[in-house]
Amino acid sequence: MTTRSLPQHISKQFDQELEDLRAKVMTMGGLVEDLLGKSLDALDRSDSELAETVTSSDYKVNLMEVNIDEECTQVLARRQPAAGDLRLVLAVIKTISDLERIGDEIEKIGKMVVRLCEQNSPKSYYVSVIAMGQHVQKMLHDALDVFARMDSQKAVDVAAQDHKIDEEYSAILRQLITYMMEDPRSISNVLDVVWAVRALERIGDHANNICENVIYLVEGKDVRHTSIEDMRKEVFPD
Amino acid sequence: MTTRSLPQHISKQFDQELEDLRAKVMTMGGLVEDLLGKSLDALDRSDSELAETVTSSDYKVNLMEVNIDEECTQVLARRQPAAGDLRLVLAVIKTISDLERIGDEIEKIGKMVVRLCEQNSPKSYYVSVIAMGQHVQKMLHDALDVFARMDSQKAVDVAAQDHKIDEEYSAILRQLITYMMEDPRSISNVLDVVWAVRALERIGDHANNICENVIYLVEGKDVRHTSIEDMRKEVFPD
Repeated sequence: MTTRSLPQHISKQFDQELEDLRAKVMTMGGLVEDLLGKSLDALDRSDSELAETVTSSDYKVNLMEVNIDEECTQVLARRQPAAGDLRLVLAVIKTISDLERIGDEIEKIGKMVVRLCEQNSPKSYYVSVIAMGQHVQKMLHDALDVFARMDSQKAVDVAAQDHKIDEEYSAILRQLITYMMEDPRSISNVLDVVWAVRALERIGDHANNICENVIYLVEGKDVRHTSIEDMRKEVFPD
Repeated sequence: MTTRSLPQHISKQFDQELEDLRAKVMTMGGLVEDLLGKSLDALDRSDSELAETVTSSDYKVNLMEVNIDEECTQVLARRQPAAGDLRLVLAVIKTISDLERIGDEIEKIGKMVVRLCEQNSPKSYYVSVIAMGQHVQKMLHDALDVFARMDSQKAVDVAAQDHKIDEEYSAILRQLITYMMEDPRSISNVLDVVWAVRALERIGDHANNICENVIYLVEGKDVRHTSIEDMRKEVFPD
Protein backbone atom coordinates (compact mmCIF):
# COMPACT_ATOMS: atom_id res chain seq x y z
CA MET A 1 0.00 0.00 0.00
CA THR A 2 1.44 3.37 -0.91
CA THR A 3 -1.37 5.85 -0.55
CA ARG A 4 -4.22 5.75 1.85
CA SER A 5 -7.78 6.98 1.78
CA LEU A 6 -9.56 7.71 5.00
CA PRO A 7 -11.37 4.53 6.09
CA GLN A 8 -15.16 4.53 6.21
CA HIS A 9 -16.75 4.07 9.62
CA ILE A 10 -20.21 3.08 10.68
CA SER A 11 -20.33 6.47 12.34
CA LYS A 12 -20.38 9.10 9.62
CA GLN A 13 -19.65 11.59 12.35
CA PHE A 14 -16.31 9.89 13.09
CA ASP A 15 -15.37 9.94 9.38
CA GLN A 16 -16.15 13.62 9.41
CA GLU A 17 -13.96 14.22 12.46
CA LEU A 18 -10.94 12.50 10.90
CA GLU A 19 -11.44 14.32 7.61
CA ASP A 20 -11.73 17.56 9.56
CA LEU A 21 -8.42 16.90 11.34
CA ARG A 22 -6.69 16.24 8.06
CA ALA A 23 -8.17 19.36 6.48
CA LYS A 24 -7.02 21.48 9.42
CA VAL A 25 -3.45 20.20 9.10
CA MET A 26 -3.55 21.25 5.44
CA THR A 27 -4.85 24.70 6.37
CA MET A 28 -2.08 25.07 8.94
CA GLY A 29 0.45 23.86 6.37
CA GLY A 30 -0.89 26.40 3.87
CA LEU A 31 -0.41 29.23 6.36
CA VAL A 32 3.15 28.12 7.10
CA GLU A 33 3.95 27.88 3.36
CA ASP A 34 2.53 31.34 2.83
CA LEU A 35 4.68 32.79 5.63
CA LEU A 36 7.82 31.11 4.30
CA GLY A 37 7.12 32.55 0.84
CA LYS A 38 6.60 36.02 2.32
CA SER A 39 9.80 35.82 4.37
CA LEU A 40 11.80 34.97 1.22
CA ASP A 41 10.10 37.73 -0.78
CA ALA A 42 10.89 40.16 2.03
CA LEU A 43 14.53 39.10 1.89
CA ASP A 44 14.65 39.34 -1.89
CA ARG A 45 13.10 42.82 -1.99
CA SER A 46 14.61 44.07 1.29
CA ASP A 47 11.03 44.70 2.34
CA SER A 48 11.12 45.37 6.07
CA GLU A 49 7.37 45.88 6.31
CA LEU A 50 6.61 42.47 4.78
CA ALA A 51 9.16 40.89 7.13
CA GLU A 52 7.34 42.43 10.09
CA THR A 53 4.07 40.93 8.82
CA VAL A 54 5.77 37.55 8.92
CA THR A 55 7.08 37.91 12.48
CA SER A 56 3.75 39.20 13.74
CA SER A 57 1.88 36.22 12.24
CA ASP A 58 3.60 33.40 14.12
CA TYR A 59 0.93 33.50 16.85
CA LYS A 60 -1.60 32.28 14.27
CA VAL A 61 0.49 29.17 13.64
CA ASN A 62 0.81 28.56 17.38
CA LEU A 63 -2.93 28.98 17.89
CA MET A 64 -3.68 26.46 15.15
CA GLU A 65 -1.34 23.94 16.74
CA VAL A 66 -2.99 24.28 20.15
CA ASN A 67 -6.50 23.96 18.63
CA ILE A 68 -5.75 20.95 16.43
CA ASP A 69 -3.89 19.29 19.30
CA GLU A 70 -6.94 19.74 21.53
CA GLU A 71 -9.15 18.31 18.80
CA CYS A 72 -6.87 15.26 18.53
CA THR A 73 -7.14 14.69 22.28
CA GLN A 74 -10.94 14.90 22.01
CA VAL A 75 -10.98 12.34 19.20
CA LEU A 76 -8.72 9.99 21.17
CA ALA A 77 -10.91 10.31 24.27
CA ARG A 78 -14.31 10.04 22.57
CA ARG A 79 -13.63 7.68 19.66
CA GLN A 80 -10.85 5.55 21.08
CA PRO A 81 -9.48 4.90 17.60
CA ALA A 82 -7.41 1.81 16.80
CA ALA A 83 -5.00 0.76 14.03
CA GLY A 84 -4.92 3.16 11.07
CA ASP A 85 -7.23 5.69 12.71
CA LEU A 86 -5.02 5.84 15.79
CA ARG A 87 -1.95 6.25 13.59
CA LEU A 88 -3.67 9.06 11.71
CA VAL A 89 -4.36 10.97 14.94
CA LEU A 90 -0.80 10.41 16.20
CA ALA A 91 0.65 11.46 12.83
CA VAL A 92 -1.46 14.63 12.99
CA ILE A 93 -0.16 15.41 16.51
CA LYS A 94 3.43 15.03 15.32
CA THR A 95 2.95 16.88 12.05
CA ILE A 96 1.42 19.96 13.67
CA SER A 97 4.32 20.02 16.12
CA ASP A 98 6.72 20.07 13.14
CA LEU A 99 4.66 22.79 11.44
CA GLU A 100 4.72 24.85 14.62
CA ARG A 101 8.51 24.57 14.79
CA ILE A 102 8.75 25.52 11.12
CA GLY A 103 6.71 28.60 12.06
CA ASP A 104 9.30 29.43 14.75
CA GLU A 105 12.12 29.17 12.22
CA ILE A 106 10.26 31.40 9.75
CA GLU A 107 9.78 33.96 12.52
CA LYS A 108 13.59 33.95 13.00
CA ILE A 109 14.08 34.56 9.26
CA GLY A 110 11.61 37.46 9.43
CA LYS A 111 13.51 39.05 12.34
CA MET A 112 16.78 38.65 10.47
CA VAL A 113 15.34 40.35 7.37
CA VAL A 114 14.17 43.30 9.50
CA ARG A 115 17.72 43.71 10.85
CA LEU A 116 19.32 43.28 7.39
CA CYS A 117 17.07 46.07 6.06
CA GLU A 118 18.07 48.37 8.93
CA GLN A 119 21.76 47.73 8.29
CA ASN A 120 21.54 48.02 4.54
CA SER A 121 23.58 44.82 4.13
CA PRO A 122 24.98 44.13 0.66
CA LYS A 123 22.85 41.73 -1.33
CA SER A 124 25.84 39.50 -2.08
CA TYR A 125 25.54 38.24 1.50
CA TYR A 126 22.23 36.57 0.94
CA VAL A 127 21.67 35.96 -2.75
CA SER A 128 22.49 32.26 -2.32
CA VAL A 129 20.20 32.14 0.72
CA ILE A 130 17.24 32.97 -1.48
CA ALA A 131 18.11 30.09 -3.83
CA MET A 132 18.37 27.71 -0.86
CA GLY A 133 15.09 29.13 0.46
CA GLN A 134 13.36 28.19 -2.78
CA HIS A 135 14.57 24.62 -2.48
CA VAL A 136 13.36 24.45 1.10
CA GLN A 137 10.05 25.94 -0.01
CA LYS A 138 9.69 23.22 -2.63
CA MET A 139 10.55 20.50 -0.13
CA LEU A 140 7.97 21.81 2.36
CA HIS A 141 5.35 22.04 -0.38
CA ASP A 142 6.10 18.47 -1.49
CA ALA A 143 6.00 17.21 2.12
CA LEU A 144 2.55 18.75 2.61
CA ASP A 145 1.47 17.24 -0.70
CA VAL A 146 2.67 13.85 0.56
CA PHE A 147 0.58 14.38 3.69
CA ALA A 148 -2.49 15.41 1.68
CA ARG A 149 -2.26 12.33 -0.55
CA MET A 150 -0.86 10.07 2.17
CA ASP A 151 1.62 8.86 -0.39
CA SER A 152 4.41 6.93 1.33
CA GLN A 153 6.37 6.30 -1.88
CA LYS A 154 6.59 9.97 -2.69
CA ALA A 155 7.44 10.56 0.98
CA VAL A 156 10.74 8.73 0.47
CA ASP A 157 11.65 10.89 -2.53
CA VAL A 158 10.81 14.10 -0.70
CA ALA A 159 12.75 13.03 2.39
CA ALA A 160 15.74 12.43 0.11
CA GLN A 161 15.77 16.16 -0.77
CA ASP A 162 16.91 16.93 2.78
CA HIS A 163 20.40 15.70 2.03
CA LYS A 164 20.82 18.24 -0.80
CA ILE A 165 19.59 21.03 1.43
CA ASP A 166 22.15 20.05 4.07
CA GLU A 167 24.89 20.20 1.44
CA GLU A 168 23.69 23.61 0.26
CA TYR A 169 23.69 24.77 3.88
CA SER A 170 27.34 23.75 4.35
CA ALA A 171 28.41 25.44 1.11
CA ILE A 172 26.68 28.73 1.98
CA LEU A 173 28.15 28.62 5.48
CA ARG A 174 31.66 28.31 4.08
CA GLN A 175 31.00 31.25 1.80
CA LEU A 176 29.67 33.37 4.67
CA ILE A 177 32.76 32.59 6.76
CA THR A 178 34.87 33.95 3.88
CA TYR A 179 32.88 37.20 3.94
CA MET A 180 33.47 37.54 7.65
CA MET A 181 37.19 36.93 7.31
CA GLU A 182 37.51 39.45 4.48
CA ASP A 183 35.70 42.16 6.40
CA PRO A 184 35.62 41.61 10.16
CA ARG A 185 33.36 44.65 10.61
CA SER A 186 30.67 42.71 8.76
CA ILE A 187 30.69 39.84 11.26
CA SER A 188 27.49 40.83 13.09
CA ASN A 189 25.58 41.34 9.84
CA VAL A 190 26.84 38.14 8.28
CA LEU A 191 25.95 36.22 11.43
CA ASP A 192 22.34 37.31 10.92
CA VAL A 193 22.49 35.67 7.51
CA VAL A 194 24.01 32.58 9.14
CA TRP A 195 20.98 32.33 11.46
CA ALA A 196 18.63 32.56 8.50
CA VAL A 197 20.48 29.80 6.63
CA ARG A 198 20.40 27.64 9.70
CA ALA A 199 16.67 28.28 10.09
CA LEU A 200 16.14 27.13 6.49
CA GLU A 201 18.17 24.01 7.15
CA ARG A 202 15.98 23.25 10.18
CA ILE A 203 12.82 23.73 8.11
CA GLY A 204 14.19 21.04 5.77
CA ASP A 205 14.60 18.73 8.79
CA HIS A 206 11.00 19.28 9.84
CA ALA A 207 9.72 18.72 6.28
CA ASN A 208 11.66 15.47 6.44
CA ASN A 209 9.91 14.60 9.72
CA ILE A 210 6.52 15.20 8.07
CA CYS A 211 7.46 12.63 5.40
CA GLU A 212 8.43 10.16 8.14
CA ASN A 213 5.08 10.77 9.85
CA VAL A 214 3.27 9.88 6.61
CA ILE A 215 5.30 6.68 6.20
CA TYR A 216 4.40 5.76 9.78
CA LEU A 217 0.76 6.50 9.08
CA VAL A 218 0.55 4.54 5.82
CA GLU A 219 2.97 1.69 6.46
CA GLY A 220 2.77 1.47 10.25
CA LYS A 221 6.57 1.58 10.39
CA ASP A 222 8.58 4.05 12.45
CA VAL A 223 11.34 5.11 10.05
CA ARG A 224 12.84 7.92 12.13
CA HIS A 225 16.58 7.68 12.56
CA THR A 226 16.90 5.36 9.57
CA SER A 227 18.68 6.04 6.31
CA ILE A 228 16.88 6.89 3.08
CA GLU A 229 17.88 3.43 1.82
CA ASP A 230 16.26 1.70 4.80
CA MET A 231 13.24 3.93 4.43
CA ARG A 232 12.96 2.89 0.80
CA LYS A 233 13.13 -0.78 1.76
CA GLU A 234 10.20 -0.35 4.17
CA VAL A 235 8.05 1.36 1.55
CA PHE A 236 9.06 -0.66 -1.52
CA PRO A 237 9.53 -4.21 -0.24
CA ASP A 238 10.54 -6.66 -2.97
CA MET B 1 -3.97 19.98 42.51
CA THR B 2 -0.27 20.49 42.12
CA THR B 3 1.24 17.06 42.07
CA ARG B 4 -0.30 13.92 40.76
CA SER B 5 -0.01 10.30 41.71
CA LEU B 6 -0.78 7.69 39.14
CA PRO B 7 -4.46 6.77 39.45
CA GLN B 8 -5.43 3.27 40.57
CA HIS B 9 -7.29 1.16 38.05
CA ILE B 10 -9.33 -1.95 38.41
CA SER B 11 -6.81 -3.53 36.12
CA LYS B 12 -3.52 -3.75 38.00
CA GLN B 13 -1.94 -4.52 34.66
CA PHE B 14 -2.95 -1.11 33.31
CA ASP B 15 -1.51 0.62 36.41
CA GLN B 16 1.67 -1.27 35.77
CA GLU B 17 1.79 -0.19 32.13
CA LEU B 18 1.42 3.49 33.00
CA GLU B 19 4.02 3.23 35.76
CA ASP B 20 6.30 1.46 33.31
CA LEU B 21 5.94 4.28 30.76
CA ARG B 22 6.79 6.84 33.38
CA ALA B 23 9.81 4.87 34.57
CA LYS B 24 11.08 4.54 31.01
CA VAL B 25 10.87 8.29 30.46
CA MET B 26 12.96 8.76 33.61
CA THR B 27 15.53 6.23 32.35
CA MET B 28 15.72 8.04 29.02
CA GLY B 29 16.02 11.36 30.88
CA GLY B 30 18.83 9.91 32.99
CA LEU B 31 20.74 8.85 29.88
CA VAL B 32 20.33 12.30 28.33
CA GLU B 33 21.49 13.98 31.56
CA ASP B 34 24.50 11.70 31.68
CA LEU B 35 25.44 12.55 28.08
CA LEU B 36 25.08 16.28 28.69
CA GLY B 37 27.33 15.99 31.75
CA LYS B 38 29.91 14.06 29.74
CA SER B 39 29.85 16.59 26.89
CA LEU B 40 30.54 19.43 29.34
CA ASP B 41 33.29 17.45 31.07
CA ALA B 42 34.82 16.74 27.67
CA LEU B 43 34.77 20.45 26.88
CA ASP B 44 36.22 21.38 30.26
CA ARG B 45 39.06 18.87 30.04
CA SER B 46 39.52 19.07 26.24
CA ASP B 47 38.92 15.33 26.28
CA SER B 48 38.36 14.33 22.67
CA GLU B 49 37.87 10.67 23.52
CA LEU B 50 35.06 11.43 25.97
CA ALA B 51 33.47 13.73 23.37
CA GLU B 52 33.50 10.84 20.86
CA THR B 53 31.75 8.62 23.42
CA VAL B 54 29.02 11.25 23.59
CA THR B 55 28.52 11.50 19.82
CA SER B 56 28.50 7.74 19.42
CA SER B 57 25.82 7.33 22.10
CA ASP B 58 23.03 9.38 20.50
CA TYR B 59 21.61 6.28 18.81
CA LYS B 60 20.72 4.93 22.29
CA VAL B 61 18.57 7.99 22.94
CA ASN B 62 16.89 7.60 19.54
CA LEU B 63 16.22 3.93 20.16
CA MET B 64 14.62 4.68 23.52
CA GLU B 65 12.35 7.26 21.90
CA VAL B 66 11.19 4.82 19.22
CA ASN B 67 10.55 2.08 21.80
CA ILE B 68 8.67 4.25 24.28
CA ASP B 69 6.66 5.81 21.46
CA GLU B 70 5.66 2.34 20.27
CA GLU B 71 4.67 1.40 23.82
CA CYS B 72 2.50 4.53 24.07
CA THR B 73 0.72 3.59 20.84
CA GLN B 74 0.11 0.10 22.24
CA VAL B 75 -1.37 1.53 25.45
CA LEU B 76 -3.62 3.89 23.47
CA ALA B 77 -4.83 1.05 21.23
CA ARG B 78 -5.34 -1.57 23.94
CA ARG B 79 -6.43 0.51 26.94
CA GLN B 80 -8.17 3.42 25.26
CA PRO B 81 -7.34 5.67 28.20
CA ALA B 82 -9.40 8.76 28.99
CA ALA B 83 -8.92 11.96 30.98
CA GLY B 84 -5.76 11.96 33.13
CA ASP B 85 -4.52 8.62 31.77
CA LEU B 86 -4.82 9.89 28.21
CA ARG B 87 -3.02 13.09 29.16
CA LEU B 88 -0.25 11.03 30.76
CA VAL B 89 0.31 9.05 27.58
CA LEU B 90 0.25 12.20 25.41
CA ALA B 91 2.63 13.98 27.80
CA VAL B 92 4.99 11.00 27.58
CA ILE B 93 4.89 11.11 23.76
CA LYS B 94 5.77 14.82 23.79
CA THR B 95 8.40 14.55 26.51
CA ILE B 96 10.35 11.78 24.77
CA SER B 97 10.31 13.84 21.60
CA ASP B 98 11.88 16.72 23.55
CA LEU B 99 14.42 14.36 25.11
CA GLU B 100 15.31 13.01 21.69
CA ARG B 101 15.90 16.53 20.39
CA ILE B 102 18.00 17.31 23.46
CA GLY B 103 20.03 14.24 22.52
CA ASP B 104 20.55 15.71 19.03
CA GLU B 105 21.79 18.99 20.52
CA ILE B 106 24.18 17.14 22.84
CA GLU B 107 25.52 15.26 19.85
CA LYS B 108 26.27 18.62 18.20
CA ILE B 109 28.14 19.75 21.33
CA GLY B 110 30.16 16.52 21.28
CA LYS B 111 31.15 17.05 17.63
CA MET B 112 32.16 20.63 18.40
CA VAL B 113 34.35 19.48 21.30
CA VAL B 114 36.10 16.98 19.04
CA ARG B 115 36.91 19.79 16.58
CA LEU B 116 37.98 22.19 19.33
CA CYS B 117 40.42 19.56 20.62
CA GLU B 118 41.87 19.08 17.13
CA GLN B 119 42.37 22.80 16.69
CA ASN B 120 43.77 23.40 20.15
CA SER B 121 41.47 26.40 20.63
CA PRO B 122 42.28 28.72 23.54
CA LYS B 123 40.20 28.01 26.62
CA SER B 124 39.11 31.65 26.86
CA TYR B 125 36.72 30.94 23.97
CA TYR B 126 34.60 28.57 25.93
CA VAL B 127 35.08 29.11 29.65
CA SER B 128 31.74 30.94 29.85
CA VAL B 129 30.11 28.16 27.80
CA ILE B 130 30.88 25.70 30.58
CA ALA B 131 29.19 27.98 33.13
CA MET B 132 26.14 28.27 30.88
CA GLY B 133 26.22 24.50 30.37
CA GLN B 134 26.00 23.97 34.11
CA HIS B 135 22.90 26.16 34.32
CA VAL B 136 21.31 24.27 31.44
CA GLN B 137 22.26 21.00 33.17
CA LYS B 138 20.50 22.16 36.34
CA MET B 139 17.42 23.24 34.40
CA LEU B 140 17.21 19.87 32.63
CA HIS B 141 17.67 18.03 35.93
CA ASP B 142 14.93 20.12 37.54
CA ALA B 143 12.59 19.59 34.57
CA LEU B 144 13.03 15.82 34.86
CA ASP B 145 12.44 16.08 38.59
CA VAL B 146 9.22 17.98 37.85
CA PHE B 147 8.21 15.15 35.52
CA ALA B 148 9.06 12.48 38.11
CA ARG B 149 7.00 14.21 40.82
CA MET B 150 4.39 15.57 38.40
CA ASP B 151 4.68 18.84 40.24
CA SER B 152 3.04 21.61 38.22
CA GLN B 153 3.93 24.37 40.70
CA LYS B 154 7.61 23.59 40.50
CA ALA B 155 7.20 23.31 36.73
CA VAL B 156 6.46 27.04 36.57
CA ASP B 157 9.63 27.89 38.54
CA VAL B 158 11.79 25.65 36.38
CA ALA B 159 10.29 27.06 33.17
CA ALA B 160 11.19 30.54 34.45
CA GLN B 161 14.89 29.56 34.36
CA ASP B 162 14.73 29.53 30.57
CA HIS B 163 14.67 33.31 30.43
CA LYS B 164 18.00 33.54 32.29
CA ILE B 165 19.55 30.99 29.97
CA ASP B 166 18.43 33.04 26.97
CA GLU B 167 20.07 36.13 28.49
CA GLU B 168 23.26 34.20 29.13
CA TYR B 169 23.19 32.99 25.53
CA SER B 170 22.96 36.55 24.17
CA ALA B 171 25.80 37.76 26.42
CA ILE B 172 28.12 34.91 25.39
CA LEU B 173 27.27 35.46 21.75
CA ARG B 174 28.27 39.13 21.98
CA GLN B 175 31.54 38.10 23.60
CA LEU B 176 32.23 35.52 20.87
CA ILE B 177 31.60 38.12 18.16
CA THR B 178 34.26 40.30 19.81
CA TYR B 179 36.76 37.43 19.63
CA MET B 180 36.01 36.97 15.94
CA MET B 181 36.45 40.67 15.20
CA GLU B 182 39.73 40.82 17.11
CA ASP B 183 41.18 37.84 15.29
CA PRO B 184 39.45 37.03 11.99
CA ARG B 185 41.59 33.90 11.59
CA SER B 186 39.74 32.49 14.61
CA ILE B 187 36.31 32.83 12.97
CA SER B 188 35.87 29.15 12.08
CA ASN B 189 36.94 28.00 15.55
CA VAL B 190 34.79 30.54 17.35
CA LEU B 191 31.81 29.59 15.17
CA ASP B 192 32.13 26.06 16.54
CA VAL B 193 31.74 27.53 20.01
CA VAL B 194 28.75 29.54 18.75
CA TRP B 195 27.05 26.29 17.66
CA ALA B 196 27.64 24.77 21.06
CA VAL B 197 26.16 27.78 22.85
CA ARG B 198 23.18 27.68 20.55
CA ALA B 199 22.75 23.95 21.23
CA LEU B 200 22.72 24.68 24.97
CA GLU B 201 20.12 27.39 24.48
CA ARG B 202 17.94 24.90 22.56
CA ILE B 203 18.29 22.35 25.36
CA GLY B 204 16.90 25.03 27.69
CA ASP B 205 13.91 25.43 25.35
CA HIS B 206 13.24 21.69 25.40
CA ALA B 207 13.54 21.54 29.21
CA ASN B 208 10.97 24.33 29.21
CA ASN B 209 8.71 22.21 26.98
CA ILE B 210 8.98 19.30 29.42
CA CYS B 211 7.70 21.61 32.18
CA GLU B 212 4.81 22.66 29.95
CA ASN B 213 4.01 18.99 29.29
CA VAL B 214 3.79 18.38 33.05
CA ILE B 215 1.46 21.36 33.54
CA TYR B 216 -0.73 19.99 30.75
CA LEU B 217 -0.71 16.58 32.38
CA VAL B 218 -1.51 17.78 35.89
CA GLU B 219 -3.75 20.76 35.21
CA GLY B 220 -5.23 19.75 31.85
CA LYS B 221 -4.28 23.18 30.48
CA ASP B 222 -2.18 23.75 27.38
CA VAL B 223 0.24 26.51 28.45
CA ARG B 224 2.50 26.48 25.40
CA HIS B 225 3.06 29.91 23.87
CA THR B 226 1.94 31.65 27.07
CA SER B 227 4.05 33.84 29.34
CA ILE B 228 5.42 32.65 32.68
CA GLU B 229 2.88 34.98 34.36
CA ASP B 230 -0.06 33.35 32.54
CA MET B 231 1.40 29.94 33.30
CA ARG B 232 1.55 30.86 36.97
CA LYS B 233 -2.10 31.98 36.93
CA GLU B 234 -3.16 28.60 35.53
CA VAL B 235 -1.26 26.69 38.18
CA PHE B 236 -1.90 28.97 41.17
CA PRO B 237 -5.45 30.24 40.68
CA ASP B 238 -6.55 32.60 43.50
